[in-house]
Amino acid sequence: MQEIIKDIKLVNQNKIVLCVLDGLGGLPINGETELEAAKTPNLNELSINSSCGLHIPISQGITPGSGAAHLSLFGYDPIRNKIGRGVLEALGLGIELTDNDLAIRGNFASVEYKDGIPTVRDRRAGRISTDENKRIVSKINKNLDNIEGVKVNLTSGMEHRFSLVLSFPDPIPGGGDSILDTDPQLEGEKPLTPTATSENAKPYAEYVAKFINQVSKIIEDEVKANYILLRGFAKQPKLPGYKEIYGLNAACIATYPMYRGVSKLAGMSVLDVFDTSIGAEINTLKHNFMNYDFFYIHIKKTDSYGEDGNFNGKVSVIEEFDRYVPDIIDLNPSVFVVTGDHSTPSLMKSHSWHPVPFLLYSKYNRSGLHNEFNECECRKGDLGIFKATDAMALMLAHSLRLQKYGA
Amino acid sequence: MQEIIKDIKLVNQNKIVLCVLDGLGGLPINGETELEAAKTPNLNELSINSSCGLHIPISQGITPGSGAAHLSLFGYDPIRNKIGRGVLEALGLGIELTDNDLAIRGNFASVEYKDGIPTVRDRRAGRISTDENKRIVSKINKNLDNIEGVKVNLTSGMEHRFSLVLSFPDPIPGGGDSILDTDPQLEGEKPLTPTATSENAKPYAEYVAKFINQVSKIIEDEVKANYILLRGFAKQPKLPGYKEIYGLNAACIATYPMYRGVSKLAGMSVLDVFDTSIGAEINTLKHNFMNYDFFYIHIKKTDSYGEDGNFNGKVSVIEEFDRYVPDIIDLNPSVFVVTGDHSTPSLMKSHSWHPVPFLLYSKYNRSGLHNEFNECECRKGDLGIFKATDAMALMLAHSLRLQKYGA
Repeated sequence: MQEIIKDIKLVNQNKIVLCVLDGLGGLPINGETELEAAKTPNLNELSINSSCGLHIPISQGITPGSGAAHLSLFGYDPIRNKIGRGVLEALGLGIELTDNDLAIRGNFASVEYKDGIPTVRDRRAGRISTDENKRIVSKINKNLDNIEGVKVNLTSGMEHRFSLVLSFPDPIPGGGDSILDTDPQLEGEKPLTPTATSENAKPYAEYVAKFINQVSKIIEDEVKANYILLRGFAKQPKLPGYKEIYGLNAACIATYPMYRGVSKLAGMSVLDVFDTSIGAEINTLKHNFMNYDFFYIHIKKTDSYGEDGNFNGKVSVIEEFDRYVPDIIDLNPSVFVVTGDHSTPSLMKSHSWHPVPFLLYSKYNRSGLHNEFNECECRKGDLGIFKATDAMALMLAHSLRLQKYGA
Repeated sequence: MQEIIKDIKLVNQNKIVLCVLDGLGGLPINGETELEAAKTPNLNELSINSSCGLHIPISQGITPGSGAAHLSLFGYDPIRNKIGRGVLEALGLGIELTDNDLAIRGNFASVEYKDGIPTVRDRRAGRISTDENKRIVSKINKNLDNIEGVKVNLTSGMEHRFSLVLSFPDPIPGGGDSILDTDPQLEGEKPLTPTATSENAKPYAEYVAKFINQVSKIIEDEVKANYILLRGFAKQPKLPGYKEIYGLNAACIATYPMYRGVSKLAGMSVLDVFDTSIGAEINTLKHNFMNYDFFYIHIKKTDSYGEDGNFNGKVSVIEEFDRYVPDIIDLNPSVFVVTGDHSTPSLMKSHSWHPVPFLLYSKYNRSGLHNEFNECECRKGDLGIFKATDAMALMLAHSLRLQKYGA
């Protein structure tokens, strides 16, 4: 559909605001979902004059990761456009990637050597503390020799996890990241040699083997974390940007690195936000409203509380967002969308596959089908159940940015 | 889906009547859409025992042109089967096309010559009157030399527009119409040379260049319209017909040339209608009811009034149609469908992307979900929101013309 949109897009002055409450969709506890339990007078009133429906992030029954769910909502086919795990991990840590970078997810592990050959004893190095992780990363960084002009960016994650970005002197060609994981997945097995599955990946796999060798020597005297296992080798995907496909100068207002990173992949400008509050995000929107055509605003805490199983916490974030709705309407956007990237029911303490409430406010809506904004009322709405990848076409249409298709 | 239908179709005596009220879907003005405001006792009563839903002509958010929307409703994928602008323009003027014909949309333009090289001063020749257009077309037709056995059919359109059909001695091969527009789109630029983008198009592009040359000499002394710009080079698409795919002897009852033309592309017989009234169309249906299996009836004025922003006008056409519903039911068709090709809300004075109400009356319907025929009630219907390309399968199924698929 992006191919068609590209050909029929129009440029105008109309503004589009897309608010994504992460993990918005829920499941009932004591008869009500988080959205049903939340007091949202502003969203309810808005829904009466809005197009409502539910979107399916990937496909019925498929629970998306955050990266895939956002790609979908941004209009990119999440099946064809994959963001590799290594890239997602790096984006989540706020690391900037270029086309020369191979991004990798890593674990510290414990191995035993027999005749100089390692065998995995603990794939997670006994879940060492994050501080311990930082100490070891700093030790590696201090002792690492620069090999073949490759710049190494090793960054601690939580517990035994880290992100590794290898910056090569030249752009990595297509298929250059086709390298199999070195984690054997089973304890008692030997770590696997980095293996290229494409011709283009061979030199990179060879480099990674040398790198693992060097690091394992630096940390061989560690009690727990004396080895590294690498997974999710990936370079950043080359996505056509919002400007090119949709003709939009788009801005991202998000406080968590991963969402800022995914937006950057889609060609959005990432705006500064004073702190992580919803109020600060809305302030950034106000101050930049005249400078862009499209705003993606990300609210994280709905998902965090959902993952914690904190029903009331999720309710309170929804209620807090509701209080800012009039401020957004006052800016007079031509299109204002409130939705989630996926569902995170507190009941499940995890992402889920359930369709996600979607509200689109504009001048061109049918109404009379619902009078609240929640899962059940959205189900009655005029948009029905649709694929998240259709959301951008709807936003562009309602802001009169699409010409007629076909004669 | 057409491929599957082709293999499982059955032939029987059941009749299908598809009434397309052009641009039927609307948006509320003062709380009601045109369909909601219209008094339609017959359609409402019918809806109680019908399958209802909304169809999406192309895809969510995409506003279709009339040609693309009709192809969809006729079951042809509108993305894969494009009707070129030149063809649509010719069909709209009632020009019959063959496989030897290259159809082109043209504008008269004003150019300035410097050292014999033209520069576009006005792409629309100051929007000359239609009468002026006719005078110039007749002058060209009188003075044109026949080159290379190509028959030229130059027909005046409105103001500065015309349709040009070049009939070559032999069928135009695939890709033969891949020629770029000669309109530079900007004033002050030189008209572009017709450029072939495929090997097969080269001889045709060369012919067109000679043609432009000859015409520009004939009209060089005109004050305003002293040049022609050509766009939308296209030959008629080769569609498998209704008989071949659906096993249907299909007839078109339409008074506007374009809809008659598109039906002909789908292999329908185009029936004579005494005048442009709905009554005349229903008379044609009655007189031919035993001679065909499938009738496509096109009612134009809903769209025309919608485009004019004439809410009450559109309402009155819907009400007029409603009065003929009992006459159609009296003929006892096995399937009777009332829908639009797309939405044309009076509020927008244009085609739009909004899903289109769809009512299918047969003996095999679930009911109890709605009791009126309009956008909101159809949203509640058993058919849900579906792609227009599925409509033909539903009609065939309800007339018991499809065998079981698979063992």
